[in-house]
Amino acid sequence: MEATEKLDTQQFLLNQLEAVVNLLEKQRIEKSLVERGSTANHVLVESMLNKQHQARLQKQLRHLHPADIAYLLESLPLEPRKTVWDAIKSEHEGHVLLEVSDAVRHTLISGMAAEEIASVAGQLDTDELAELAADIPKRAMLKILRSLNSDERRHLNTLLSYPDQQVGAFMDFGMITIRDDINLKAICAYIRKLGKLPGQTDKLFVVDQHNRIKGTLPLQRLLTHSPSLPVSEVMVSDAIVFSATQDIAEVARAFERYGLISAPVVDAHGELQGRLCVDSILDFIRDKTDEDMLTQAGVSEEEDLFSSVWKSARNRWGWLLINIVTAFASTRIIGIFEDIILQLVALASLMPIVAAMGGNMGNQTSMLIIRSLALGQITPANIQRLIKKELTLAVINGSFIGLIMGGASLLLYQDGPLSAVMAAAMFSNLLVAVIVGLGIPLLRHKLGRDPAVGTSIILTSITDSMGFFIFLGLASIFLVDH
Amino acid sequence: MEATEKLDTQQFLLNQLEAVVNLLEKQRIEKSLVERGSTANHVLVESMLNKQHQARLQKQLRHLHPADIAYLLESLPLEPRKTVWDAIKSEHEGHVLLEVSDAVRHTLISGMAAEEIASVAGQLDTDELAELAADIPKRAMLKILRSLNSDERRHLNTLLSYPDQQVGAFMDFGMITIRDDINLKAICAYIRKLGKLPGQTDKLFVVDQHNRIKGTLPLQRLLTHSPSLPVSEVMVSDAIVFSATQDIAEVARAFERYGLISAPVVDAHGELQGRLCVDSILDFIRDKTDEDMLTQAGVSEEEDLFSSVWKSARNRWGWLLINIVTAFASTRIIGIFEDIILQLVALASLMPIVAAMGGNMGNQTSMLIIRSLALGQITPANIQRLIKKELTLAVINGSFIGLIMGGASLLLYQDGPLSAVMAAAMFSNLLVAVIVGLGIPLLRHKLGRDPAVGTSIILTSITDSMGFFIFLGLASIFLVDH
Repeated sequence: MEATEKLDTQQFLLNQLEAVVNLLEKQRIEKSLVERGSTANHVLVESMLNKQHQARLQKQLRHLHPADIAYLLESLPLEPRKTVWDAIKSEHEGHVLLEVSDAVRHTLISGMAAEEIASVAGQLDTDELAELAADIPKRAMLKILRSLNSDERRHLNTLLSYPDQQVGAFMDFGMITIRDDINLKAICAYIRKLGKLPGQTDKLFVVDQHNRIKGTLPLQRLLTHSPSLPVSEVMVSDAIVFSATQDIAEVARAFERYGLISAPVVDAHGELQGRLCVDSILDFIRDKTDEDMLTQAGVSEEEDLFSSVWKSARNRWGWLLINIVTAFASTRIIGIFEDIILQLVALASLMPIVAAMGGNMGNQTSMLIIRSLALGQITPANIQRLIKKELTLAVINGSFIGLIMGGASLLLYQDGPLSAVMAAAMFSNLLVAVIVGLGIPLLRHKLGRDPAVGTSIILTSITDSMGFFIFLGLASIFLVDH
Repeated sequence: MEATEKLDTQQFLLNQLEAVVNLLEKQRIEKSLVERGSTANHVLVESMLNKQHQARLQKQLRHLHPADIAYLLESLPLEPRKTVWDAIKSEHEGHVLLEVSDAVRHTLISGMAAEEIASVAGQLDTDELAELAADIPKRAMLKILRSLNSDERRHLNTLLSYPDQQVGAFMDFGMITIRDDINLKAICAYIRKLGKLPGQTDKLFVVDQHNRIKGTLPLQRLLTHSPSLPVSEVMVSDAIVFSATQDIAEVARAFERYGLISAPVVDAHGELQGRLCVDSILDFIRDKTDEDMLTQAGVSEEEDLFSSVWKSARNRWGWLLINIVTAFASTRIIGIFEDIILQLVALASLMPIVAAMGGNMGNQTSMLIIRSLALGQITPANIQRLIKKELTLAVINGSFIGLIMGGASLLLYQDGPLSAVMAAAMFSNLLVAVIVGLGIPLLRHKLGRDPAVGTSIILTSITDSMGFFIFLGLASIFLVDH
């Protein structure tokens, strides 16, 4: 029995690793890499099956990019994940931690001693460290802080001092600053002496003696202009500069709009604080849209595909509990009208349609508003027009749907008054739905909250309750005897 | 009356333009630009109010970045939008067309003559032209094709030959190719002679005599290595290369993972076709997530904030009609059980909860699956484990929610058998919901379709119908007399 289970696990690991390496291969067709990849694959699988071959596995993993190892770890169940993670022990470990999802990072860090975490974190730059900071246990963090020099500690403090949604929290410090009075030839010599530029460097930052930004020198201009020219004549003096306290979503839009790769970030006094790169922007956009999608569905946070069932269950309970409460609220509304349903049982069949169509149309409106808010298309000046348009739309669509629903009810029940009530209730609830679908995101936005979080659930609970209330209320007035 | 209306419009335009310029200001704090912006603002408004000042408006608009003009146009209602668009008439016009949303582009192009469109399109590169191609009327397109040289025509054909979701459709041709047998000094001289590098150039592409890619030369390495070295010694020979037929979503992940700025794209024979840049990736990610969000809500396509009410109404009808049909389907299921509801009216109150909770829990599951599919975390090897985990989760959460619902029903109606039926129906429908929530996206993915489109609507209609059927069915068996 146990032997079969072990075989199953081994077969599973084999399949899993093969699938992962196949995917990696699909993503880069460059020959030498692919070949290297598939040899790595076989040795990898082999080493995993014979656990004594840790050293060999380790050697194979060293050839993979940290992002690829992270991807491998994310697709592995908890136990083999631990085996692979233990086998890494390389200079990559810190970067792998950086690349995995938050949920998977927890599973990795939870099995490490404070000393181990501190030594792994030692491989990282301060901006990378700041990204991990929230997940590192206090004891390990103290050890890490002691190992930093004063510059690094200052950088880390700066990064951690900005709220999550501000540019300052997304900066890195891998920028090269120059003065504007030297010539391009000297800059070239300086770069050659450095030997290596930080990743995503497409421009150098020109500052004055107070570290205030004067302009930028794109590498392009450095390469295309005469080496004898001074920086001041070649630099871009009206470069795009961001403030550390700006909203990152707004800045992400600017990156898209102007096709930026990197940009200087300054404080309130115009002093250079750090730089923002397009890779941070990509991360931000992906995280934000993922988060929006998950909260729309009522999942609290990112989930490890293989986290324990209990952990996942807890993660989804928050919104489900809210749903239970709101569902019972609409039940109580139906409860009030139970004697009316007894007099005309067709009401029970028709009432869910009134509620459901309201929810659907309200969601259409709120999604369009949430998206327009995210795109910054909604301004105090055009908001009135927009509201007017959506309400007109609600009246038009509401009339159509009301007529269709009324007609269908007439066909089903051959009851004129009932059909008229159905049409009127449908129309009214659609109007309610659009007003709520407009109102919730706009209000949340005005209060400085994220307009996407929970909108769908609040909206549906209101359109459900109102749908039942309007329909059964109209029926009790016009259709039945008291 | 008319005078007041005109005043209203003028006031509206004033507010609108001010809001737009304020927003632009907020996005870049660089001093000179802001100052320039706010002068531009006042003159802009003034010129718009006195329509005879077209020339002045035109001059002011010329200072704005095409992306900013596009943003301005998107936030303007149809009529002032036309005024501003007519005033542009500059070398920017083509790029503005490129930057506006599809819906707004339609409103702009529809008012232009074929000759005008052809001359505007003449300002664009072939890859930009390819982006617009779908929106350009046939007559104008023929004019444009005649004005291209043979290279450009070939490029355009190449771009248009790839389906929307393949890398080939996102390429541009602004790459600089070099041979590997010359030294860095010669490369620098060549770049200086060119005078300007294409946007987003962070590396040069090294090719052999058959135009097959041999490696890349990052500008970084060009700047940090000795000018006397040959390219072959400095270049990155295992560079990441994409195939023109690869899936763009997969490649976007690779851009994020490896922090790429640009990468070569090759055909099946390894010949260099073009390059892919991070700005195209950003555009793709934004468009894709916007689209997912809108289709989830049942909005067919991107909508112009100020498109006519009728156009918007049509845009939202597709899914609403599907909703009407599915809503009536669940009504018919309730209809079958009307006599049972008459015997026990509490069923009418409780049945919407069974349906609604199923929809919510199914949506949680399907969203997590859709996201994991998009991240490429689901492989043939781990899918079984994943399904097992989600089903276990459904059993646990279903039991809890079933017990809560049963308990609450007991409190409300003091009816033991009814509460037991409620608990059992709740449990069963949540299981159905999770199976459907897993099944639809996985099936759509297996069939090569987008797993996100329409999932939520199909899912809700199934959980509604099944919720009513299971609950009323169980009630008819266990609770009432026939």
